Amino acid sequence: VPQQPRTGAWLVGARGSVATTTILGAAALRAGLAGPSGLVTELPDFAPAGLVPVDDLVFGGHDPSPSSLLKRAENLVAGGVVPAQLVASLHDELVTVDREVRPGIAAGPAGRPDRAVIDELAGDIGEFRDRHRLDRVVVVNVASTEAPVQERAEHRSWAELSRALDAGSRDLLPASSLYAVAAIEAGCAYADFTPSPGGRLPAVQQLAYERGLPYAGSDAKTGETLVKSVLAPMFAMRALRVRSWAGLNLLGGGDGATLADAEVAQSKLTSKSQALTAVLGGGVTAPMHIDYVPNLGDWKTAWDHISFEGFLGVPMTLQFTWQGCDSALAAPLVLDLVRLLARAHEIGKFGALEELSFFFKDPVGTDEHRLSAQWEALRRLAADFSEPAPVSEAG
Amino acid sequence: VPQQPRTGAWLVGARGSVATTTILGAAALRAGLAGPSGLVTELPDFAPAGLVPVDDLVFGGHDPSPSSLLKRAENLVAGGVVPAQLVASLHDELVTVDREVRPGIAAGPAGRPDRAVIDELAGDIGEFRDRHRLDRVVVVNVASTEAPVQERAEHRSWAELSRALDAGSRDLLPASSLYAVAAIEAGCAYADFTPSPGGRLPAVQQLAYERGLPYAGSDAKTGETLVKSVLAPMFAMRALRVRSWAGLNLLGGGDGATLADAEVAQSKLTSKSQALTAVLGGGVTAPMHIDYVPNLGDWKTAWDHISFEGFLGVPMTLQFTWQGCDSALAAPLVLDLVRLLARAHEIGKFGALEELSFFFKDPVGTDEHRLSAQWEALRRLAADFSEPAPVSEAG
Amino acid sequence: VPQQPRTGAWLVGARGSVATTTILGAAALRAGLAGPSGLVTELPDFAPAGLVPVDDLVFGGHDPSPSSLLKRAENLVAGGVVPAQLVASLHDELVTVDREVRPGIAAGPAGRPDRAVIDELAGDIGEFRDRHRLDRVVVVNVASTEAPVQERAEHRSWAELSRALDAGSRDLLPASSLYAVAAIEAGCAYADFTPSPGGRLPAVQQLAYERGLPYAGSDAKTGETLVKSVLAPMFAMRALRVRSWAGLNLLGGGDGATLADAEVAQSKLTSKSQALTAVLGGGVTAPMHIDYVPNLGDWKTAWDHISFEGFLGVPMTLQFTWQGCDSALAAPLVLDLVRLLARAHEIGKFGALEELSFFFKDPVGTDEHRLSAQWEALRRLAADFSEPAPVSEAG
Amino acid sequence: VPQQPRTGAWLVGARGSVATTTILGAAALRAGLAGPSGLVTELPDFAPAGLVPVDDLVFGGHDPSPSSLLKRAENLVAGGVVPAQLVASLHDELVTVDREVRPGIAAGPAGRPDRAVIDELAGDIGEFRDRHRLDRVVVVNVASTEAPVQERAEHRSWAELSRALDAGSRDLLPASSLYAVAAIEAGCAYADFTPSPGGRLPAVQQLAYERGLPYAGSDAKTGETLVKSVLAPMFAMRALRVRSWAGLNLLGGGDGATLADAEVAQSKLTSKSQALTAVLGGGVTAPMHIDYVPNLGDWKTAWDHISFEGFLGVPMTLQFTWQGCDSALAAPLVLDLVRLLARAHEIGKFGALEELSFFFKDPVGTDEHRLSAQWEALRRLAADFSEPAPVSEAG
Repeated sequence: VPQQPRTGAWLVGARGSVATTTILGAAALRAGLAGPSGLVTELPDFAPAGLVPVDDLVFGGHDPSPSSLLKRAENLVAGGVVPAQLVASLHDELVTVDREVRPGIAAGPAGRPDRAVIDELAGDIGEFRDRHRLDRVVVVNVASTEAPVQERAEHRSWAELSRALDAGSRDLLPASSLYAVAAIEAGCAYADFTPSPGGRLPAVQQLAYERGLPYAGSDAKTGETLVKSVLAPMFAMRALRVRSWAGLNLLGGGDGATLADAEVAQSKLTSKSQALTAVLGGGVTAPMHIDYVPNLGDWKTAWDHISFEGFLGVPMTLQFTWQGCDSALAAPLVLDLVRLLARAHEIGKFGALEELSFFFKDPVGTDEHRLSAQWEALRRLAADFSEPAPVSEAG
Repeated sequence: VPQQPRTGAWLVGARGSVATTTILGAAALRAGLAGPSGLVTELPDFAPAGLVPVDDLVFGGHDPSPSSLLKRAENLVAGGVVPAQLVASLHDELVTVDREVRPGIAAGPAGRPDRAVIDELAGDIGEFRDRHRLDRVVVVNVASTEAPVQERAEHRSWAELSRALDAGSRDLLPASSLYAVAAIEAGCAYADFTPSPGGRLPAVQQLAYERGLPYAGSDAKTGETLVKSVLAPMFAMRALRVRSWAGLNLLGGGDGATLADAEVAQSKLTSKSQALTAVLGGGVTAPMHIDYVPNLGDWKTAWDHISFEGFLGVPMTLQFTWQGCDSALAAPLVLDLVRLLARAHEIGKFGALEELSFFFKDPVGTDEHRLSAQWEALRRLAADFSEPAPVSEAG
Repeated sequence: VPQQPRTGAWLVGARGSVATTTILGAAALRAGLAGPSGLVTELPDFAPAGLVPVDDLVFGGHDPSPSSLLKRAENLVAGGVVPAQLVASLHDELVTVDREVRPGIAAGPAGRPDRAVIDELAGDIGEFRDRHRLDRVVVVNVASTEAPVQERAEHRSWAELSRALDAGSRDLLPASSLYAVAAIEAGCAYADFTPSPGGRLPAVQQLAYERGLPYAGSDAKTGETLVKSVLAPMFAMRALRVRSWAGLNLLGGGDGATLADAEVAQSKLTSKSQALTAVLGGGVTAPMHIDYVPNLGDWKTAWDHISFEGFLGVPMTLQFTWQGCDSALAAPLVLDLVRLLARAHEIGKFGALEELSFFFKDPVGTDEHRLSAQWEALRRLAADFSEPAPVSEAG
Repeated sequence: VPQQPRTGAWLVGARGSVATTTILGAAALRAGLAGPSGLVTELPDFAPAGLVPVDDLVFGGHDPSPSSLLKRAENLVAGGVVPAQLVASLHDELVTVDREVRPGIAAGPAGRPDRAVIDELAGDIGEFRDRHRLDRVVVVNVASTEAPVQERAEHRSWAELSRALDAGSRDLLPASSLYAVAAIEAGCAYADFTPSPGGRLPAVQQLAYERGLPYAGSDAKTGETLVKSVLAPMFAMRALRVRSWAGLNLLGGGDGATLADAEVAQSKLTSKSQALTAVLGGGVTAPMHIDYVPNLGDWKTAWDHISFEGFLGVPMTLQFTWQGCDSALAAPLVLDLVRLLARAHEIGKFGALEELSFFFKDPVGTDEHRLSAQWEALRRLAADFSEPAPVSEAG
């Protein structure tokens, strides 16, 4: 019997709500305390794809917060995201994973050269891999969203960026991109779960390509945009002309606090607006707002109002209200991405993994925003995984 | 230059809201007074399919109502469905088509043998074809929904049904099925736009098959169910477990008055509930109601409340409110069906045209209820139409 | 210092969700673990009214369920109605009150004369009062809703009813009315929290009047109807003509299961529809539905769609969605009613306490359904309580 | 028989949507072509108040637009606000009133001293009164909302302002206040229908007081705020703690275009937020947005999401969607204000007419924002009007 490869999941932002729910959820599945709700890769289509079982994943990560996974889990209990019983039962597992968390870096100037930071971060990941004798590690950035980055010449090619790093440059890259470079230099597949620049800079993408590593991103599609990605194609298929699509997003929690910063929110709003334009074309009045409402906690509420025209120009409307728990929607997707990227890495796929567009608001490598088409691409990837062809480039 | 074949559209219920909007809309398109909003077959995918131009369609139909198309059009103006200016400009066209409407039969016992009724109805259609030198006619039943039919042995095979008809039986078939048999015996492609039994009886389907005619149905998907057919697959693709899906439909107008009858509403509710079960499986609590609210007129309002479970069983909800004008949603689909069935007939496709499932709540010939999959089937049909293969059976 | 009178609260249905939340909440307030959210009688207007402090209330009740308050409290924790921590902290208080619960009677035939049942129930209440040396006890029926009662001649006067009871009649009264008679014969003020017949039968009302006891009811106004009672007057004050008011109520929990019975639901629907007619007059199309959706548990969701006419007949709409936790809405009102009825009893007010219409969907003694007018009546009652006039009849 | 006093209604912004609907509606009522829907002063409570019949009102106004009432009325027909038939029938009446419209002034610098502008505006009103031999004229400003005004020392007292005007100052007052001063100097009762500064400047209020004229304002309460003014008190009366109240307003039309200017929108947002704070106190997270969605035209859609806490801190929500036609909601209120101010003027009431708070988002002279309390104040005013006391000050 061939031995199952050992796979690690390294989460940047490892003590945040999404990471904690991910780690807790994986432990709950292993313990038989939870079912696979929300886990796409547990659907029958993925059974023959050779994915690593969730039970076998080993977790670690970076987080500058001095708090603990346990403390965050208790907050999630208080907010109604996870049952108290679950945290009590899995106390030991949380403590064990917490020992695998390294401080990493916070947002803002690091006070030392970027190259030094990258080497330290990559070192943390490498030690984690060695310590647990892992065949491979997938790095997923689930840390708070950053503001859009100011474009610089060095961001455009790895050759230039590399030179500047070696020359001792500081503050050349945003934190998310430092993590991405570190992950890739450590030989890991990588995913951007947020709209932060991360692996989206051309220089970083080139690096991944050169190292033969797959990457995916960005900005996971968990709520309002998920719904948009099926409703917008519906209007298009029916030739119903959408005139306006207005949206208001209310959220509390850490994500809400971060997005209360108008500059940061811009990253998110830009990412959220892509699906509409891609599917419906221009000419749609589409105001969108994100408001921080602390008492809602992790419960995100979105209202969308769509006005459209039917035959003979008759005006009609569709409204929807989405009330979802952000961490519970995000966490299983983190597990899905780890499993899919690990398998891609294993069979030698590399570059932008556009077949993972299904998971993202702003998918790398493709302009396809229709959920059903993204689903078919994902299923084709699963089929490829079942009978992997010889090594080929991913995107 | 090969001459364009001449095509007729024969509407059962020709003076109802849907038929009137269809006829008025086709005239408006011809006159350049309206755009193609809502017309699926005007999307670029259908350009090479060889469909008859909407401008060339010749309309006629059956309706026992002593009123007129013009009168109904004025009602539609009062209800805000169509602009007053349009009816004023197209007055002559409405009067012209009205002359092509024959009384047909009302619901309830006919007072004479079914065979005599069928022959008369088929005669009306045949005369219409001859009078206008049409190459073919497509019959679409847009009359009010009937109550579910009591199954009888004669409904099961055309051999038996035919025998009983020849023997002078009365009240063997509901009105919708008398129309369907007449259409087929007149050599026409046929579509059920409502959930009435119509062409769904096995005996009638056999007849269409034997005569080499294509048919489609049933119950056009115009509003709430259309939305369901994209949202339900979204939950399925994301492995989000739907626990309940409750719906309340409010509508006035003729359709509302008909559905105020609990027995008739049953036809509709049965048809509406299919998509959910097909896509999500069992175990979903799914109460649904239809209420007659006269003052809403043709404006149908539906509220759906969906509760689902995310990761770790966290309960979440999605609600939507659809406010659509029923006739304006239905009319372009009637034109789409006429064009597609005419082309299928022309190239010799026959039997249940399951590729038209995109248009129906309860599609004949298939259990596919996911809109995107239905769309792909429809596009494949359009491609077939572009380069028709030798004559083959449709479904 | 004059000693504070000692007051008991006897709950019929003492182990149900509403009663458990009431008892737990009172204990939480006493322990300083919860604030007065939802408690009307803790608003400043009621400070001088001489009401018994919530902290001083002594609880007991009837419930045929063999389960326990603690078990029910744990269910409420699982359903997200009350925090786990609260139940853990107040474990002892729940156990103590549970000892004060007597089996009482279940719905359905009792198998013995009504008079015997009443005497036993009244005996339970009397013993509770004696055991705790209470000055007075208020009985509130929070048990499951019963179906509407078949009217009988004996229900019309206490003289007749009394005669029939003494003659050994069986099954003359529904369970709720047996409880009401027992409460009154035990000398207690009484309130119907549900639409069950309870104290609404004329014979029972006469008995309360003769015994000089105040009573109130019926069917507490906790959610959708509360909102209606401010929106309907808004339309009326603005001369906006309401054309239709449709409603769909989704609820799980014990209440939902009970109301899944169409006959029982009728009690509720009748009660719920009163406010509209009273405030807006006739002519409003007002379909209403209650559906049992088990997975919603105690969380009641209601959607209301109101269509109305503005100036020149322009049609407009207002929709609202209410998502409330039934027990958490009901429990503080139980405490409010106990405090207000105890004070009324203390100062000698008797008969129908119409000033409590603020709390009810179907208020005894008045046709006033506008919340603001009811509020003013309640404030006047509080003022009366501050400086009680000589004994007078209540309603 | 005593002769009915003759009353004029002078509308600033006389060719806008609100004014046109007002003028058309009054003509429709006179012609028996429309009912009194939306007219508060036609409710039975106002029958004995001695108000001038709507039929007797004589209309005129200021508007710099070179367009016509008829043209605007046709736009309203196209937007579904008023029936085409109505405009056709009342063509002559619109043309007649249009002759009574004077250009007035546009927003922005006038290019001449404010005093000259005021005198010209007052002259227009005076000539209108003389021409029609009116006993009195009520001026209502229904022109587009202005940005908040920069406060100046001269705005604080009429003595100072008057001096500066006489000294030839320019651009001292915003257009709305020039109109207000002109109205008062012309001896007219005055109302601010928008949040523009208008009559709210202390200097202008003093002038009205000195001249013994009644005035009212500001910012008519037509939609979302109307609903708020009954829902917020509901939460307060029930001791339910509101945690957040978020709102999104979508509107097209002229009002929408004006409010697309962020500075102008600020006037509106400030005015809209008052009711919440006044009724619920501080501590409510209350983000609010206004978006310009051109295709919605005069149809304003607002979504409000309210999160509140029940007993034991349980979080609950109420959402509502308001879909109203702004002009049709506003127009009858203009007629109500004219009738009530004319009567107040007639019986000698003067100063801020706080009893008209019922009509306004930001009422002058009072902090009362609860609709029911405002309604009671209005009814008391109507009672005063029935039996007017000797001359007294209004507020």
